[in-house]
Amino acid sequence: MLQFDLLKTDPSSHARRGKLTLNHGVVQTPIFMPVGTYGTVKGVMPRSLHEMGAQIILGNTFHLWMRPGLDIMKGFGGLHQFEKWDKPILTDSGGFQVWSLGDMRKITEEGVTFASPVNGDKLFMSPEVSMQIQTILNSDIVMQLDECTPYETKGHLTTEAEARKSMEMSRRWAVRSKDEFARLENPNALFGIVQGGMFENLRQESLDALVEMDFPGYAIGGVSVGEPKEQMLQIMAHTPHRLPAHKPRYLMGVGTPEDLVQGVADGVDMFDCVMPTRNARNGTVFTRFGDLKLRNARHKNDPQPLDTSCTCHACAGTSGVSWDQGGREGFSRAYMHHLDRCGEMLGPMLTTIHNLHYYLNLMREVRESLDAGEFSQFRAQFKSDRARGV
Amino acid sequence: MLQFDLLKTDPSSHARRGKLTLNHGVVQTPIFMPVGTYGTVKGVMPRSLHEMGAQIILGNTFHLWMRPGLDIMKGFGGLHQFEKWDKPILTDSGGFQVWSLGDMRKITEEGVTFASPVNGDKLFMSPEVSMQIQTILNSDIVMQLDECTPYETKGHLTTEAEARKSMEMSRRWAVRSKDEFARLENPNALFGIVQGGMFENLRQESLDALVEMDFPGYAIGGVSVGEPKEQMLQIMAHTPHRLPAHKPRYLMGVGTPEDLVQGVADGVDMFDCVMPTRNARNGTVFTRFGDLKLRNARHKNDPQPLDTSCTCHACAGTSGVSWDQGGREGFSRAYMHHLDRCGEMLGPMLTTIHNLHYYLNLMREVRESLDAGEFSQFRAQFKSDRARGV
Ligand SMILES: [Zn+2]
Ligand SMILES: [Zn+2]
Repeated sequence: MLQFDLLKTDPSSHARRGKLTLNHGVVQTPIFMPVGTYGTVKGVMPRSLHEMGAQIILGNTFHLWMRPGLDIMKGFGGLHQFEKWDKPILTDSGGFQVWSLGDMRKITEEGVTFASPVNGDKLFMSPEVSMQIQTILNSDIVMQLDECTPYETKGHLTTEAEARKSMEMSRRWAVRSKDEFARLENPNALFGIVQGGMFENLRQESLDALVEMDFPGYAIGGVSVGEPKEQMLQIMAHTPHRLPAHKPRYLMGVGTPEDLVQGVADGVDMFDCVMPTRNARNGTVFTRFGDLKLRNARHKNDPQPLDTSCTCHACAGTSGVSWDQGGREGFSRAYMHHLDRCGEMLGPMLTTIHNLHYYLNLMREVRESLDAGEFSQFRAQFKSDRARGV
Repeated sequence: MLQFDLLKTDPSSHARRGKLTLNHGVVQTPIFMPVGTYGTVKGVMPRSLHEMGAQIILGNTFHLWMRPGLDIMKGFGGLHQFEKWDKPILTDSGGFQVWSLGDMRKITEEGVTFASPVNGDKLFMSPEVSMQIQTILNSDIVMQLDECTPYETKGHLTTEAEARKSMEMSRRWAVRSKDEFARLENPNALFGIVQGGMFENLRQESLDALVEMDFPGYAIGGVSVGEPKEQMLQIMAHTPHRLPAHKPRYLMGVGTPEDLVQGVADGVDMFDCVMPTRNARNGTVFTRFGDLKLRNARHKNDPQPLDTSCTCHACAGTSGVSWDQGGREGFSRAYMHHLDRCGEMLGPMLTTIHNLHYYLNLMREVRESLDAGEFSQFRAQFKSDRARGV
């Protein structure tokens, strides 16, 4: 099931406040969804995800198909019980990962043939196979199989003709995905994915065809695939607000905090990105007042937490009181710098908690500003805070 | 300060139940102390240590001297504030680590000259320096600098003459440690360390001299240094119960669950060992019913937690109800096997929590059996449970 209630819209932008009801619970939008590729958001316990207010997380169909495999997923009745996450889960189609195999895969109208990167087995992915796997995973939101249109291939910019060919196949795969999803009597919700590369006319064609098919929700794919930022912003400005107002909109694989706030203004409801978790493991921390490189020696004696306004476990300890509010239970930048320098696991554990909390809290503040009718003011404050410097 | 209250003794062994009051709190003995070398118990958040009932943890003087260094430790007023652990801490003297540098160090009566493994700086460690560093760390229990007598050196078994020479230097270093500790007006508690290698007569001499010096507590060092198990058991049987009854006894660097239970029977109050944390990271898990290798393919579809009787976060989730008591919130062996196979950080995070919880819970059960006057029965049950197989 999927029910989407549009609670409020911002008069000065395409931003909206919504409530998404899925089989495993309710998601307040706009929302950021942490990525849990192999059935674990890297370095984070489910309890920490609950504590930081995660409402829905991602799983990667391709990875979970490879490991642990479908037999084990069947045995556990799906991904929720296996990874011990009882709130909503969205799974991708596996298409992007298969596509990323490069020379190791062959794409035809029927589907994609490839060699398993785990054991070399010859495998086949198709709209039908993707639906079958996602049904076993029992994710609350299932994505259609699409072909990701590249921005460029070995220096060659994708032409409009190439982008059209790819988009049209994705559209046909959308039909097959929908048919198989229905045949399987999957009780969850299937999203269609708008493609079309960097071409607005193709995006519009793709969108029109998918809207015609009446999916319960829509994603914008094929962004954040190596294109220049202005191209991404152009597609973000073009596509989301053209999608049906009463259905959720998901911008795939985006992005920085600035991208998320812009995406909300462009009418996006849902985001996912590996950036907060991946950057955390590299010692790059997002804060209200700009980004912070833990490795920088200037932190080595600093008693302040990563973000003085943050209430995450890394910054505020179990008290949940930020440094700015007088809390002193968080871990210092000096300690975090030390953990990083010594390669101690606790370093990425804490930076991951912080970065995800930062993203989730950013979306919480966005929602509150929308509820209060103050989204414009919020955007201005967000920009000036981020520019202040940490 | 240090106050040790002997609460109960076991009539059938040298086991005792005690209460140790230190500057940062009370420790119920017998106790296992998790090792936090660089100011972090590897892979565990302080909150998890609290939840699993850790009462006191270790820090390594040598490592903390190298990184983050004494200036930073001074700035934070010691290790507690730096690593955000407000309960008692014991620090070693740094002697073992300096000694382990092998050809990179030179030991004389005055102390040890060595090159910093971090930046190559020529450094000097002595009883005085060790006391000065540990005073900056402000650990609740400070260890004297000693020379660790090896069991063998490049195939040559340490002779009695060599062990005597080494033990006598440790004895003189004990005097210098005590003098410097007093001069520094360190408000914490200094332990003397019994040495003497595998020679009972030397152990007795060392012990007599140290008891004469009236330390508030005593450690048994130079075990778990590569000697055969029977030699270790011989020293465990010989030395601890000869130490003053009204002072705490700490057996350094030991050992397996079986070693700990035997050590308690031999009159030991305190243990530390890297085994539970190190083995956790290698996927070797201690359970009530024997040890478990996560990598083993037989776990790949097993819905049971690591230890069906365990109430740790890995085995029982946030409910704290074990599988045997009907709890189903823990992570399955299948999931743990999957995390291990994928090299996911959550794997060692959860196995470390479990292994430490296992050790701490073992000591809790030991204390309860001593309180109830049922230590002999406990030992028999412990042996048969561990032999059952997991
Ligand atoms: Zn934070
Ligand atoms: Zn456990």
